[in-house]
Amino acid sequence: MIAQTPPMGWNSWDCYGASVDEKTVRANADYMARNLKQYGWEYVVVDIQWYQPTASSHEYEPFADLCMDEYSRLIPTENRFPSAMEGKGFASLAEYVHSLGLKFGIHIMRGIPRQAVSKNCRIKGTDKTARQVAKTDSICCWNTDMYGVNPKKEGAREYYDSLFEMYASWGVDFVKVDDICRELPKEEEELKMISDSCRSCGREMVLSLSPGPALLEKAQLYKDYANMWRITDDFWDKWELLYNMFERAEKWCTHAGPSHWPDCDMLPVGAILQDEDPDYRCAFTQDEQITMMTLWCMVRSPLFIGGEMTKIDEFTLNLLNNSEVLEIIKHTHSAHQLFRRVTDGREQIAWFTTHENGKDYYIALFNCSEEECKIEVKIPLSGSFHVMNIWNHESFGIAEGVFASKVRPHGAELYKFERV
Amino acid sequence: MIAQTPPMGWNSWDCYGASVDEKTVRANADYMARNLKQYGWEYVVVDIQWYQPTASSHEYEPFADLCMDEYSRLIPTENRFPSAMEGKGFASLAEYVHSLGLKFGIHIMRGIPRQAVSKNCRIKGTDKTARQVAKTDSICCWNTDMYGVNPKKEGAREYYDSLFEMYASWGVDFVKVDDICRELPKEEEELKMISDSCRSCGREMVLSLSPGPALLEKAQLYKDYANMWRITDDFWDKWELLYNMFERAEKWCTHAGPSHWPDCDMLPVGAILQDEDPDYRCAFTQDEQITMMTLWCMVRSPLFIGGEMTKIDEFTLNLLNNSEVLEIIKHTHSAHQLFRRVTDGREQIAWFTTHENGKDYYIALFNCSEEECKIEVKIPLSGSFHVMNIWNHESFGIAEGVFASKVRPHGAELYKFERV
Amino acid sequence: MIAQTPPMGWNSWDCYGASVDEKTVRANADYMARNLKQYGWEYVVVDIQWYQPTASSHEYEPFADLCMDEYSRLIPTENRFPSAMEGKGFASLAEYVHSLGLKFGIHIMRGIPRQAVSKNCRIKGTDKTARQVAKTDSICCWNTDMYGVNPKKEGAREYYDSLFEMYASWGVDFVKVDDICRELPKEEEELKMISDSCRSCGREMVLSLSPGPALLEKAQLYKDYANMWRITDDFWDKWELLYNMFERAEKWCTHAGPSHWPDCDMLPVGAILQDEDPDYRCAFTQDEQITMMTLWCMVRSPLFIGGEMTKIDEFTLNLLNNSEVLEIIKHTHSAHQLFRRVTDGREQIAWFTTHENGKDYYIALFNCSEEECKIEVKIPLSGSFHVMNIWNHESFGIAEGVFASKVRPHGAELYKFERV
Amino acid sequence: MIAQTPPMGWNSWDCYGASVDEKTVRANADYMARNLKQYGWEYVVVDIQWYQPTASSHEYEPFADLCMDEYSRLIPTENRFPSAMEGKGFASLAEYVHSLGLKFGIHIMRGIPRQAVSKNCRIKGTDKTARQVAKTDSICCWNTDMYGVNPKKEGAREYYDSLFEMYASWGVDFVKVDDICRELPKEEEELKMISDSCRSCGREMVLSLSPGPALLEKAQLYKDYANMWRITDDFWDKWELLYNMFERAEKWCTHAGPSHWPDCDMLPVGAILQDEDPDYRCAFTQDEQITMMTLWCMVRSPLFIGGEMTKIDEFTLNLLNNSEVLEIIKHTHSAHQLFRRVTDGREQIAWFTTHENGKDYYIALFNCSEEECKIEVKIPLSGSFHVMNIWNHESFGIAEGVFASKVRPHGAELYKFERV
Repeated sequence: MIAQTPPMGWNSWDCYGASVDEKTVRANADYMARNLKQYGWEYVVVDIQWYQPTASSHEYEPFADLCMDEYSRLIPTENRFPSAMEGKGFASLAEYVHSLGLKFGIHIMRGIPRQAVSKNCRIKGTDKTARQVAKTDSICCWNTDMYGVNPKKEGAREYYDSLFEMYASWGVDFVKVDDICRELPKEEEELKMISDSCRSCGREMVLSLSPGPALLEKAQLYKDYANMWRITDDFWDKWELLYNMFERAEKWCTHAGPSHWPDCDMLPVGAILQDEDPDYRCAFTQDEQITMMTLWCMVRSPLFIGGEMTKIDEFTLNLLNNSEVLEIIKHTHSAHQLFRRVTDGREQIAWFTTHENGKDYYIALFNCSEEECKIEVKIPLSGSFHVMNIWNHESFGIAEGVFASKVRPHGAELYKFERV
Repeated sequence: MIAQTPPMGWNSWDCYGASVDEKTVRANADYMARNLKQYGWEYVVVDIQWYQPTASSHEYEPFADLCMDEYSRLIPTENRFPSAMEGKGFASLAEYVHSLGLKFGIHIMRGIPRQAVSKNCRIKGTDKTARQVAKTDSICCWNTDMYGVNPKKEGAREYYDSLFEMYASWGVDFVKVDDICRELPKEEEELKMISDSCRSCGREMVLSLSPGPALLEKAQLYKDYANMWRITDDFWDKWELLYNMFERAEKWCTHAGPSHWPDCDMLPVGAILQDEDPDYRCAFTQDEQITMMTLWCMVRSPLFIGGEMTKIDEFTLNLLNNSEVLEIIKHTHSAHQLFRRVTDGREQIAWFTTHENGKDYYIALFNCSEEECKIEVKIPLSGSFHVMNIWNHESFGIAEGVFASKVRPHGAELYKFERV
Repeated sequence: MIAQTPPMGWNSWDCYGASVDEKTVRANADYMARNLKQYGWEYVVVDIQWYQPTASSHEYEPFADLCMDEYSRLIPTENRFPSAMEGKGFASLAEYVHSLGLKFGIHIMRGIPRQAVSKNCRIKGTDKTARQVAKTDSICCWNTDMYGVNPKKEGAREYYDSLFEMYASWGVDFVKVDDICRELPKEEEELKMISDSCRSCGREMVLSLSPGPALLEKAQLYKDYANMWRITDDFWDKWELLYNMFERAEKWCTHAGPSHWPDCDMLPVGAILQDEDPDYRCAFTQDEQITMMTLWCMVRSPLFIGGEMTKIDEFTLNLLNNSEVLEIIKHTHSAHQLFRRVTDGREQIAWFTTHENGKDYYIALFNCSEEECKIEVKIPLSGSFHVMNIWNHESFGIAEGVFASKVRPHGAELYKFERV
Repeated sequence: MIAQTPPMGWNSWDCYGASVDEKTVRANADYMARNLKQYGWEYVVVDIQWYQPTASSHEYEPFADLCMDEYSRLIPTENRFPSAMEGKGFASLAEYVHSLGLKFGIHIMRGIPRQAVSKNCRIKGTDKTARQVAKTDSICCWNTDMYGVNPKKEGAREYYDSLFEMYASWGVDFVKVDDICRELPKEEEELKMISDSCRSCGREMVLSLSPGPALLEKAQLYKDYANMWRITDDFWDKWELLYNMFERAEKWCTHAGPSHWPDCDMLPVGAILQDEDPDYRCAFTQDEQITMMTLWCMVRSPLFIGGEMTKIDEFTLNLLNNSEVLEIIKHTHSAHQLFRRVTDGREQIAWFTTHENGKDYYIALFNCSEEECKIEVKIPLSGSFHVMNIWNHESFGIAEGVFASKVRPHGAELYKFERV
């Protein structure tokens, strides 16, 4: 089964927006293969508008002319992805990523290109045209590339089938579908159609939905039709966004499980926003980054590095290659918040999760205030435990009943409890 | 000042949908000039998609190719409007209508044609193009012809100015702008821009907004920027829609006044829906039609005949040419509901209005139930009055204090009270 | 018919709260008879807790012991109302007020005294007791005197009948029922029961409902079951409260008519809050007071003086005895707002109403901004008019089409338009 | 620490309403000691209105006279609880329950008796009176015994301290406070005051809050200030109520933990509603009862038997004394729903929980439809497991990856998964 544990990888959006190119993708894949693959990082994902020749930043150019084949399908623009020449699409790039022992992913926008509708292009394998399958009242509110596809129209399913058939032929392992996750219930039938096309295309692909916030009341639908779905709007390196994630994580935590993962979004670590400023680095403090990584791991969010990896610094690398921390992503279950309270004017949060080995538990303590504070937590299990701080590898000794630790402002402490 | 009293006329929508042609418009204008002009009926309005060559019914063909000039402006399609040949637009047709002593109106969709954006056409008198002024997240949810225009973009105002300049050159007297009335607050700035273009184009044109329901909390905005605005979604010949109008009329009545009129929509009387069935006739009972006409007059709604006039029957004609009833449209003020109550299980409504002559008043009684009932009303003024039933021209005698009348199911009685 | 025009009078609340006594009521009645009666002022109303011996201010003493007869009916406390001795109730005081050519009113709280329930007192003319008719889940949220009465219980209607029978025997002309107006729909059946008891008691009494805000969706109910009802919570001498009245007045204006009047609450003019400070005077500016009086008259609100009249100053007296202004209260109809808009950063409001003489109209201009401004209004009638400023009795000359006037900050101008 | 695992016991409400007496309590305590104590059942709780002499059913007599001491404190009525004579309160009854090795609990209404306010009784240890501490706008909407207590008033905390001091002197181990759980945020400060009084009274008492539904957004408050709180309104033997519990259970499951338990309400099993009909028995089918017990155990709800235990039948007894099922109540953690979906038209739900022994897991399958169906579940852990049906003690064999079972309509299957 695909996505048995939360997918881990790299995504081009945070660092390059719509402007990533083939050379950069290959360089990041190389870096991952050499330095991170052994910790479980494996997906290399090309984000939005790889079909737009003049894309150059995080902004979209309205109504731009796009690279498209005769069947209304967008294809990589050769000026940015030279190996796409001669109609090869992403086959060469995927092959290269696979050769490194990694997996290859792409981003797509829900729908059919507006220019295919304007030109009334054909749908592959049918006598239908783009005008006939386009959903007339469905557009993305932040991007002008597509119209939605109307599942009630003949040719609609065939269009999506033709897309996934092409992606399968390229060797794609992961598809992030955008403009759909929070568009429910309006676009619910289109989501189901996409999922069905994906799952019947003959190649296993992780199906990832964007953008958030996903609708909690549709949790079962996401679990049934996708492998991961964004629970927030775009996440960036701002404390307020990180702070707000605690509430979302609490609401979604019981919905995580093999093949269905609520997604806290990419980790905007290291060299992000490179299209704007090559010297820009993640604005989170180190404590905030530890808070982020701790929370993402406790709730088993998919983990996607947002920064340009070839520019990675030591702190960031250590954030991403801590085996004891990543053990949580891979081998725990049933995470949930223990409490969220204000004590002496400081907001404190504690989370708890359980290792599938039946012996270890983890408690994460978060200090959301502006001052250091001591957080005390009742261990929700009887018995005695060896306690280990797994960010700094220090032993805490034996605990029973109650446990407490100082936590820095905006910081987190993450402890493994091993039953004595 | 334009629209000093509520505009009265004919509109092609109810009878022909998007498929009206020049011959039909001329025939209806002829009929109006001969039979209804003397009662105040004067506007002849060509409704939606006169620029769409293949329009043939009340349904819109998605993404159809439209007739457009080089400046992104839609123009009449010659196959349906032959006099539009050689770029003359509606000039000949308007001239003909004017020659009959009538006024000429057209319908437009808010925005700029999507095909102008796709082709990236120019905006007249600027170096801007359609792609640069189109509002990327603004489409009509029921028609695919246009994108909204972004008022923040250079060239946006010039686009609308170029539209109204063209309409003025054609001799247009009335413009019904669609996909805007209920789109507030989102499209509020575009509405203001359209209104400004209309009012500065050099020719007086009534500005009518569709579709409803208009937003009551924006009443002052409509009053300031338009001459009439729809207070309901499309009105058809169904009792439920007529019944619901009482509530809307009550909410909007205080907002009627010279040059600003809440609009109850066209009167679907006589031969409507002719594109579907030439034998179709208005499904309202005669009592219901009298109820409709009475309510529209009491609240001073604009009056637009929806049926094919050349097929008019005697009952319908008498509904439209009653001078004493139309006196209310032209010369009253301050209409309001007196009561709406259930008496003996029957819902009764009474309205009151005042003639500007200072001598006459009108009381309308409506029976919304399924059985005849007697409606009693306290005359809200002291003194004695001669009372006249102005639908059937019968005198009621003298009344003082209280007045009562039987009213048929779904029917109305309309009385003039003349102070003794 | 009672309350054919909006009731006008004096009420003890604004000046004395719960502490008014007989001597004060007589002194104010004397003043009204000598100085204001000729202008239409006639009701003298004793407000809340005339049955509470220790009431001394605008605050209520929780769970105080109240004066009550054996039938669960509250009666005036003799220490404050000496003429109530020997079970006479308000009969002597009412007789005195009547001897001056005025009318007498009282305030009551909806319900049955909690102490009657605690003592399980009888209901007159029945074998029921207070415990059996009290509504168990109905209390006033700001006063502890009463429980609601459950209309479904035997004895409930008899209790209210016994109240109004007693009030009728006293000679009461006006009853202000509190804790009911905004308690709909929960207490709707109790309101109907009170109204029925009032109207069948054998003496005509104005039925006034408090406190507001009344519910607009229940307008017809108020019209059917009461003579006046409060459209706001308590109104005091603060600009914000006056400013907010414009919105309420607009919503309620079409519901005013003979015997049913939306009520803007007492006029807190002159010597109010005398229980707190005998030197306190209304904090409104003179302009604001003119704004208030103009608005109340235009919408035909009931007018109740809130100040101690024996301390009245000349400005206040002139506010209350302007015959031309009070003509509007008595002889107009169909008032409504013409516009409310921001022009040059200043919020302007205009109202229009019609004299029943068929010749005169009134336009009131309000400046809600902090700076003087000129307000222009389109006269909503054709023809020429002599225009007179009726606050300062200055002629404006002839106007036609458009009219304009400067208005001071927070001020109002009130013009009579007499058709030439 | 108190309530380390979910409290288990018996409560008099379901079987006797407000009418339970001492003899009955003793008989049920005897039964529990002999037959259920060994399975963990220990609390014997006297529910509402033990202070009301004439209480005889599930209905409350409005404004009844209550047994009260001189300090405004309600005390047991001797006609129903003879051992309460001479001011002993519940001391003798509690002593008897303790002598059986069980614990004793009582129900109280939030607030101070209205009759104490009416009589203006004293507050123990202060110079304050009931009138001074009563909250004037706070009553229970379904019972007339009390006023709320205003935490801002001097004497308020002393009143509650005097209550819990008395309960401690009686030997009370469990207090169910009614009219408070869903009254937040209005009565939040009173809840905190009650909790503080309870926790500082010198005797450990479980603090239980009623009625539900509790407010999810106040989850942390309940966790901090109480030991259990009702997540629903009263639960009875109707499928609809049981069906609705799944949704509530899903929302609240992450808030369960040592000393803080979301409460699904009493189990209306066996001989309930005995005040109405001694022959009445629980209307749930056996399958529904198994569904109920399975769900309550999986989410670790407190378990309180609602039926008259001396009349228990064999099926009901087996529902309550299954050690393997009760093991879940006592020794699991981190329960959560795996899925809730409609498959082939049948609504299926699965829950998962983890034994603290690190070796066992439980999966419960629920069929909410009207027809038998097969429910398939992906085991959310890798590895192989011995599977045991713990309601019928049958072994299922070995499972890995996926597991499926038939489930009867409205029924449940409960499986233990023991890692091989």
